[in-house]
Amino acid sequence: MELIDGNRISRKIIEELTAEVADLDGIKPAVTFVRVGEDPASVSYVNKKGKVASEIGIESNLQVYPESISESELLAEIDALNVNPSIHGILVQAPLPSQINERTIFNHVLPSKDVDGFNAANLGRLCQEDQDAFAACTPAGIVELIKRSNVETEGKRVAILGRSLIVGKPAALLLLRKGIPGNATITICHSRTRDLPSVTREADILVAAIGSPEFVTADMVKDGVTVIDVGINRVEDSTKKRGYRLVGDVAFDEVAEKCSKITPVPGGVGPMTVAMLMRNTVKALLLARKTIS
Amino acid sequence: MELIDGNRISRKIIEELTAEVADLDGIKPAVTFVRVGEDPASVSYVNKKGKVASEIGIESNLQVYPESISESELLAEIDALNVNPSIHGILVQAPLPSQINERTIFNHVLPSKDVDGFNAANLGRLCQEDQDAFAACTPAGIVELIKRSNVETEGKRVAILGRSLIVGKPAALLLLRKGIPGNATITICHSRTRDLPSVTREADILVAAIGSPEFVTADMVKDGVTVIDVGINRVEDSTKKRGYRLVGDVAFDEVAEKCSKITPVPGGVGPMTVAMLMRNTVKALLLARKTIS
Repeated sequence: MELIDGNRISRKIIEELTAEVADLDGIKPAVTFVRVGEDPASVSYVNKKGKVASEIGIESNLQVYPESISESELLAEIDALNVNPSIHGILVQAPLPSQINERTIFNHVLPSKDVDGFNAANLGRLCQEDQDAFAACTPAGIVELIKRSNVETEGKRVAILGRSLIVGKPAALLLLRKGIPGNATITICHSRTRDLPSVTREADILVAAIGSPEFVTADMVKDGVTVIDVGINRVEDSTKKRGYRLVGDVAFDEVAEKCSKITPVPGGVGPMTVAMLMRNTVKALLLARKTIS
Repeated sequence: MELIDGNRISRKIIEELTAEVADLDGIKPAVTFVRVGEDPASVSYVNKKGKVASEIGIESNLQVYPESISESELLAEIDALNVNPSIHGILVQAPLPSQINERTIFNHVLPSKDVDGFNAANLGRLCQEDQDAFAACTPAGIVELIKRSNVETEGKRVAILGRSLIVGKPAALLLLRKGIPGNATITICHSRTRDLPSVTREADILVAAIGSPEFVTADMVKDGVTVIDVGINRVEDSTKKRGYRLVGDVAFDEVAEKCSKITPVPGGVGPMTVAMLMRNTVKALLLARKTIS
């Protein structure tokens, strides 16, 4: 069994991006993070993204709005970011307060600045296999892990557990594409799937993205499978100082024994998401320059 | 074995739409067909669509451009249609001549007038399970056939043979949705799938959309399967006056023996595509009125 080391791979990507940005003759990619309220997880995620951006040489700017902001006020703020030519990427940190429809906000970000890839236009262009589309960062990270771990996908059976808009569906579209990695036979399963273990046991590659701690057990996979665990779940653990530990959607110890390759949690898909956001930001700058020239 | 009668079901939908349009107090939905050149199949398709529109009470208008039109000229023509408030739907008949990128044209149609559902924004909104999105007409027709034939999809295994942008992918997204029909476990297979018969034999519902005459044989399906045959292929037949006959992607006679339900070719999915185009046009008018009021 080989561990797919997301920390090492994301570190490599960050180094590559740093070199790429250094080659841009002083032109810096610029991303704006939009945060609403003071949710501690959101504060922490945005800080982390800002730190990595700075390391690469990407300018980042943080706009914070009060928890009480209305949807129309937030839309107007995004309008201003959309038309500002010195901003290449816009990331609106989820979750947003309940008075705001997240889909409305994501769809309002200019597609060419939508480095999060949640915009309908980018999802659609992903369906169209448009190379210039922005893919959502977590599924893009999954594909990059697969690619850089030399896991063959062509003609292989891939089971994706979870049909979410931010992971399951775009991951399916990416691995279905004509290309490398791609050309896989994709099965998307979910809460309504009957006899789930018989479906997941068909898979040469299993992507678990359901947000349920240690849901995938050894009886659900076949020998030699590659497992990509997207889940990051907190489970109570009184032996830990902070009172919990992080586990994935996969019961790691028992499943790992049957795997040819598997991602750990933490240190698997997680760090890739931030790296892919940075890659999308550099891509946004390059596409903007191509459009102008 | 029960035949799923697309002629009968599409006829019923056309009657429902006729009644719906009659209830609109004299306001008529209006669709513009854009045809480039004189390809006989395109001429015939557009004529057929115009005839059905007229029967329902939908106004249709045909714009014909010469085979030599440039992409930028065609984009300008579409701009004019996009801003014309008396046009609710725009359909650009494919195929387009080689100097024109079809995807560029489809993506240029205003999403709210994109009754063909080929626009990236509509594909993306389909991913987002937005009820107001326009689904492409053939996959929408497949789903409607399944619904009106009382074929249960929830938790069932659906194999979609073909990953095209106009059938395979949107059909997968539609049957994956939370709803009825929907909630299926979807497998998308294609030319690179290994041991295809073992994959298709898992399916409770098989959607064949690969454009290869009589490709699906009896050994590729399990007993009791429902088969939706999207293919319309011409094969030479000297016993026919016109020199050919139409067959689907399924070897009908041998596969039908194992089916609980199956669509014939012709008379299955084909007539549904036109009916769904009409439904999208009525929907475009209703959405436009909702936006204005």
